[in-house]
Amino acid sequence: MAGAVFTAQDPRTGAILGSYSDADDETIAIACRQAAAASSALRDEQVRVRLLRETARMLRAAGPELHELCGRETGLPRARLEGELERTCVQLELLADVVAEGSCVEAIIDTADPDAPIAPRPDLRRMLIPIGPVAVFGASNFPYAFSVAGGDTASAFAAGCPVVVKAHPSHPGTSGLVAAIVLAAVEEVGLPPGTFSLVHGASSQVGEVLARAEEIEAVAFTGSLAGGRALFDVAAARPRPIPVFAEMGSVNPTLITTAALRARAASVAEGLTASVTGGTGQFCTKPGVVLVPADDDGAAFVDDVVARLGAVEPAPLLNARIHEALREAVAELNDDADVRRLSDDGDAGANRGAFLHAPVAYAVDGALAARRPDLLQERFGPLVLFVRYAGIEEASAVLDALEGQLTATVHAESQELDDLRAIISRLEQKAGRVVFDGFPTGVAVTHAMQHGGPYPATTAPAHTSVGTTAIRRFQRPVTWQNAPAEVLPAALRDDNPLGIWRVVDGHLTRDPS
Amino acid sequence: MAGAVFTAQDPRTGAILGSYSDADDETIAIACRQAAAASSALRDEQVRVRLLRETARMLRAAGPELHELCGRETGLPRARLEGELERTCVQLELLADVVAEGSCVEAIIDTADPDAPIAPRPDLRRMLIPIGPVAVFGASNFPYAFSVAGGDTASAFAAGCPVVVKAHPSHPGTSGLVAAIVLAAVEEVGLPPGTFSLVHGASSQVGEVLARAEEIEAVAFTGSLAGGRALFDVAAARPRPIPVFAEMGSVNPTLITTAALRARAASVAEGLTASVTGGTGQFCTKPGVVLVPADDDGAAFVDDVVARLGAVEPAPLLNARIHEALREAVAELNDDADVRRLSDDGDAGANRGAFLHAPVAYAVDGALAARRPDLLQERFGPLVLFVRYAGIEEASAVLDALEGQLTATVHAESQELDDLRAIISRLEQKAGRVVFDGFPTGVAVTHAMQHGGPYPATTAPAHTSVGTTAIRRFQRPVTWQNAPAEVLPAALRDDNPLGIWRVVDGHLTRDPS
Repeated sequence: MAGAVFTAQDPRTGAILGSYSDADDETIAIACRQAAAASSALRDEQVRVRLLRETARMLRAAGPELHELCGRETGLPRARLEGELERTCVQLELLADVVAEGSCVEAIIDTADPDAPIAPRPDLRRMLIPIGPVAVFGASNFPYAFSVAGGDTASAFAAGCPVVVKAHPSHPGTSGLVAAIVLAAVEEVGLPPGTFSLVHGASSQVGEVLARAEEIEAVAFTGSLAGGRALFDVAAARPRPIPVFAEMGSVNPTLITTAALRARAASVAEGLTASVTGGTGQFCTKPGVVLVPADDDGAAFVDDVVARLGAVEPAPLLNARIHEALREAVAELNDDADVRRLSDDGDAGANRGAFLHAPVAYAVDGALAARRPDLLQERFGPLVLFVRYAGIEEASAVLDALEGQLTATVHAESQELDDLRAIISRLEQKAGRVVFDGFPTGVAVTHAMQHGGPYPATTAPAHTSVGTTAIRRFQRPVTWQNAPAEVLPAALRDDNPLGIWRVVDGHLTRDPS
Repeated sequence: MAGAVFTAQDPRTGAILGSYSDADDETIAIACRQAAAASSALRDEQVRVRLLRETARMLRAAGPELHELCGRETGLPRARLEGELERTCVQLELLADVVAEGSCVEAIIDTADPDAPIAPRPDLRRMLIPIGPVAVFGASNFPYAFSVAGGDTASAFAAGCPVVVKAHPSHPGTSGLVAAIVLAAVEEVGLPPGTFSLVHGASSQVGEVLARAEEIEAVAFTGSLAGGRALFDVAAARPRPIPVFAEMGSVNPTLITTAALRARAASVAEGLTASVTGGTGQFCTKPGVVLVPADDDGAAFVDDVVARLGAVEPAPLLNARIHEALREAVAELNDDADVRRLSDDGDAGANRGAFLHAPVAYAVDGALAARRPDLLQERFGPLVLFVRYAGIEEASAVLDALEGQLTATVHAESQELDDLRAIISRLEQKAGRVVFDGFPTGVAVTHAMQHGGPYPATTAPAHTSVGTTAIRRFQRPVTWQNAPAEVLPAALRDDNPLGIWRVVDGHLTRDPS
């Protein structure tokens, strides 16, 4: 079957930037076979370190060339693209450092113990190995950092897994350029070409064929709930199911108390406005549902934020589909008798062929919101729903009505923390990250980051797609029992030649075993 | 709907030991609601440590009473039951020690860094928290160690999760006794009763209702491929999918070289016989497919093992269903023109109302086996299939035809290891544990154990159901961002009051942050 044709468009003007074609089944099959064939070459940790660093170096060097096309395909401003590319490179380099340090294989050694309780114990040595080829689905909203050479690809490489990327159809040209850079790095460090492949696709069929490929051992996805769940269902229905690490966004509830407003309403309003409108509201950590007290301080705060939002220029959404979805969400809320519209209709681009939209705000009463979980769904774009709560029980009821979240935020004063303890504990149950007196957007690439959360925020709440522990998604433990020294990986040898941290007979150490 | 009735039987005699009833939906719903209500009480690590230790203490004290009934329900000999109960207690105590030490929450702290690359970095603190109520499915073949108070329950408690156990219908009385002991321990340490519940069920419906319950956050299962996959499918199809950690057995391929036979054929034959017949061949790590060289040494070895197997007394299988499945497998192999029968029909109990079976052995040529993956399926019970391989390529082809395995074993001499490197590497890809010059049965409960493997050995190859890292199945990371000290769990406080290992700004340390 010939692949369907799709078109890249400048979201600022609607200009046509080229036509691309869905990969056919045979192309996908070749990419997966080549990936499987490349697996053993990636077992060498040092070559992975060089691959990650070389990719970062080459990406940085290509910045100007990339931003030119990427800006056209995404409508994202130059400064944002420069920052995102640097973030992408820092991410690759941080993961390279983690692999170079080496302890992420989580080596555990139990030396033989003839006097162990119950039965004599053999020598057992366990470490994490790569799971095999990973299918990565690029996201629309981060053309670099969550795309072709983004966090998922970097984590898979760090774990030692070949990657087949399905490019997001919103920025196919950028994806192709980045893929060429990754492949140049692959070549430079002497890895086989199957280490990395890129397939294009606008229809869900391409992704489903990829997720069904026998050689693929895991799927990493960032995008919509519908898209992520579809891949999860495909992968779970395989004769041999594979894990799907889908990050599918959330409404990132934000609770603000009266005391916090009295102490610093203006700075919270300023930060919230930036967080709602950053990236034209197209971050998966955008605070979409904001709980404000149903009192004068809350009302003044909402007025202030609405005024600030009104001063933000309309900006382009990433593509026609996101633009259309936001227009539909706005129309639905406008027609909802339970919801109060606080700002003008923001569809600034409707008559210009562009995907522009201005920030928009709505309000609903807490008692109503608690009974209307349909209102508490993610709406991608610069849209915020204020929920006016009358007392902490009502706020609790609203939070209870929420599904799993990537983040949850509390703005409160320290003397209130005792009263909020139950709510905070509830937020820990609901979310992957709990933010205090800050904003959930801006996901730091570091060791302690958790970018994940209970379903439907992700399909794999035990994992993260950002931060150094993101590698863990693509690793699998193997134990060697009574293995001769010459068979053992370096990480498990008696003399600890890599100098890594290991648990030896129950104790963490860098000493030989 | 009233629950279906099922019957416990003595597999040695067929004697009826009592009738039980499937839990109805309302009973399951109550257990799950109570479990959810108990979750917060288990957040306290110290109470978990006491629960695990108290359960072990009480189980040990109840040994004689338990073995009396358990022996009748399972047909397992007293010495085995004593050993298994001790193993179960040691497992509870080892996990208690791990929780008491505290580092298994994997705390990671990144202190705030205003000069971080790209953007100022907030204070981020990450640790693993309990995922919530776990449904545990008891196994038929380990009435203590993989059942009501077995490894799954112990791991879930260690992680801080309430447990609802679905007892295996083969030993409902034993399950009830053990449940009463667990609940006595729950009461003793002051935890709410919902911490632990037991439901009975012989039909798959009970398990499916449990796996569908909204409050359940994960399923742990040990049993057949059909049973595990059914639960996996139910859990994946939920509106909110949950993980299923199903351990579903394997054939545990064992490769023996001519050189190994020349060096120590008798000891390998002795060990293999014990491994095939231990627990009447009803261990998930039983070596079911044994690759032997198609030469004189191989033939003599097979003869020796067959003679040794012939000297093993017929023993009872655990229940009528397993007995029937083994009889069917034997009948099928007897009728298979590609397979050579090496021993008498072992169905010693057919005319006595007992589930007795003698060990049985078969042989097939390697070239045939490589083309007949249907022959390389698990057959529960004291049955071994020898695969005679002519050269290392043929052995490789047979191993390639195998699906994912819990274990893979190599008996070889050290001078052969270079030639076997590719095969060993292949086994690491196929299995969770690679055993050298030993036998896969006897799964040590320790830090470095990996009891798991690629599908269909398990539904979750990244995890283990035995060993201290089994706790990780029931944990989920949460990050606190800029949290006030009074909100932080002890594991994440600056002064490290628990004295645990933490990664602070990228470095592993027990120092304060």
